[in-house]
Amino acid sequence: MMVAPNSSTPLLTTAAGRQQLLACYRDGLLHDTLPFWFPRSIDREHGGFLHCLDHDGTVVDTDKSVWAQGRMSWMLFTLYNTIEPRPDWLEWGQHGLQFLERHAFDTDGRMFFQLTRDGRPLRKRRYAFSECFAAIAHAAHAKAAGDNRSAERAREIFELFTRWNFTPGLMPPKWTDTRPMIGFGPRIITIVTAQELRANLGDAPYLTSWIDRCIDDIRHWFVKPELQVVMETVGEDGAILDHFDGRTLNPGHAIEGAWFLLAEGRYRKDASLIALGCQMIDWMWERGWDQEFGGLFYFRDVYHKPVQEYWQDMKFWWPHNETIIATLLAYICTGDVKYARWHQQVHDWAHHHFSDQINGEWFGYLHRDGRRSNTLKGSLWKSCFHHPRMQWLCWQLLAHS
Amino acid sequence: MMVAPNSSTPLLTTAAGRQQLLACYRDGLLHDTLPFWFPRSIDREHGGFLHCLDHDGTVVDTDKSVWAQGRMSWMLFTLYNTIEPRPDWLEWGQHGLQFLERHAFDTDGRMFFQLTRDGRPLRKRRYAFSECFAAIAHAAHAKAAGDNRSAERAREIFELFTRWNFTPGLMPPKWTDTRPMIGFGPRIITIVTAQELRANLGDAPYLTSWIDRCIDDIRHWFVKPELQVVMETVGEDGAILDHFDGRTLNPGHAIEGAWFLLAEGRYRKDASLIALGCQMIDWMWERGWDQEFGGLFYFRDVYHKPVQEYWQDMKFWWPHNETIIATLLAYICTGDVKYARWHQQVHDWAHHHFSDQINGEWFGYLHRDGRRSNTLKGSLWKSCFHHPRMQWLCWQLLAHS
Repeated sequence: MMVAPNSSTPLLTTAAGRQQLLACYRDGLLHDTLPFWFPRSIDREHGGFLHCLDHDGTVVDTDKSVWAQGRMSWMLFTLYNTIEPRPDWLEWGQHGLQFLERHAFDTDGRMFFQLTRDGRPLRKRRYAFSECFAAIAHAAHAKAAGDNRSAERAREIFELFTRWNFTPGLMPPKWTDTRPMIGFGPRIITIVTAQELRANLGDAPYLTSWIDRCIDDIRHWFVKPELQVVMETVGEDGAILDHFDGRTLNPGHAIEGAWFLLAEGRYRKDASLIALGCQMIDWMWERGWDQEFGGLFYFRDVYHKPVQEYWQDMKFWWPHNETIIATLLAYICTGDVKYARWHQQVHDWAHHHFSDQINGEWFGYLHRDGRRSNTLKGSLWKSCFHHPRMQWLCWQLLAHS
Repeated sequence: MMVAPNSSTPLLTTAAGRQQLLACYRDGLLHDTLPFWFPRSIDREHGGFLHCLDHDGTVVDTDKSVWAQGRMSWMLFTLYNTIEPRPDWLEWGQHGLQFLERHAFDTDGRMFFQLTRDGRPLRKRRYAFSECFAAIAHAAHAKAAGDNRSAERAREIFELFTRWNFTPGLMPPKWTDTRPMIGFGPRIITIVTAQELRANLGDAPYLTSWIDRCIDDIRHWFVKPELQVVMETVGEDGAILDHFDGRTLNPGHAIEGAWFLLAEGRYRKDASLIALGCQMIDWMWERGWDQEFGGLFYFRDVYHKPVQEYWQDMKFWWPHNETIIATLLAYICTGDVKYARWHQQVHDWAHHHFSDQINGEWFGYLHRDGRRSNTLKGSLWKSCFHHPRMQWLCWQLLAHS
């Protein structure tokens, strides 16, 4: 599935190159990634998906991540809605969503994080990202099946998520109130979840309002022009907290957030949003790209001090997926050849290092120098999501731009 | 401070070699490790120790780990009690202990985990390891200063720790009760804490009783002769839980626990305990030693399946400190030259890879191949504890055995 580096001309800058890239993403999705997961992961005995898979698809843990169930269902419904209405995709997605509805909700309406194979709750987290993935799965299902109940559930769960995340004092704190901190993560996941609800359920003022609020937070609190950086965590007033946690940057995460803003800028035809997204990419590419070994570092320190997380220089699959999307979208939005070059660079490095030529899909975790740290294709954290989302979205962007 | 590999004869097997090792540990402690930390880390403005230090001693975070305050005070009092009564050591240890007493206890008697420089609480954890380190610091202070109040505090805090850890339902659960798990960690930390209280406050039936109970748990639940392994986590009935978390081994941690058992076997003149400790070392050396790059892996899978933690093959400083102690003690207890060879092997690898010839002390975190992952000497997790404890204990063992 790898596209060979094409001398000094990035593929994005020629029509033939764009066709080559389109085929790479399309064929990678349909003939490499999806066949790794389906029908293999479908648990016909207990429902849902078995997603903790070794390199060859062997199940190495039967526990089920609630994130994974929602994310995989969303991916399947999205393919059904946007590529073609294959009955399998709809049925498999519904298989995942039914398991979620049956087992993943606690009596307080909030969701669990990890379940046994037969759906008994193992763990619930303070934060509510499980809810985001259930919301987008329901929204995509509402469109795929014309299911009003799913549309209603998507709105309910999104409302619960935003209330839980943005009502001061509601979420049990991990820290005392000595040094309040706010995170970039909840803002960008709110934006992309609202965008998904809008795409599948139609526009609504409450969605625009949440997107506006989160963009405003990012612009005023997390983006730091004086340092040319996007912070991951800041004080309640946007102050940089000069401690390990406060200084830690997550370049791939910032770049993921950047493409959500580019997508919003394109949707709204808002040049200032596109400029903001590109600015975020520029800064965090500079911070994140490893000049020595290639690939994107996981964490960096805003002041170039040592990062406390000892695995900080590892290369994870998902920041590369997100950066491939972000640079492609930035090129489409601006025509700036810099983004085509970066896109080629991260596309080539990632396909070369993460892809498995034998069994398909990508490995998840590399050491700084590109050696694999384990052979897993799926785990509590990695399932059928970031990589196929990239393949699907890049294919669609290339087909329709 | 490194002792050069001495052809095929391990240093431990000759009198001259033992003198060479003794000098290495003694001089390393007194002239390399301690001067890195003291007086540099003493915070005369706000009390306690500033321990988040870069390779050259620069403070990179002013937050204070409650573990570090207790551990560093314990180390100083222990040197005062066992090496020589240097007034500085007593005064510096009291400086740390006063900060703990003033700032580290919550109103419920339990301790915080992380404080600001001026002692305001940032974080409290479910588990109660902060309490163990405060208890041993108080016990060592009771002996150093003849302070009855510290003796009383040590007993109180130990009682609180054991009640918190071993009363079912008291500690807020991280998981639901769907799949109850028990850990090796609380057992071994109870043993070593009780041993420290016994050493400094005198023997007492409640200490013996706690040690007995924890040894019994380890023997019956965590040690698996059929697999030749020591588990880190098991079900309540000792069952191996065939999931990522249940399968994950921590060889350095098991070997640390093994030397606590060897020490207990020596104290009680109990050959069966010494045999158990040696058995644990044998199995976990086999599981943990990296035949390709040397050093001890952090995590392994009991069934040789992939480990979910992506940094699982990193080399951390402390498992090497604990394995140097364990192999030395096993050699002293048994005279088996195998342990002298392993001791030489881990001693050489660790000193070669972790020590900083320029600024002293050890670095903390290496990639599998021995490259450093960051330049920190101290952090929320690493302070003046495992490394000087090894140097102190190995010196004392060689001097008195």
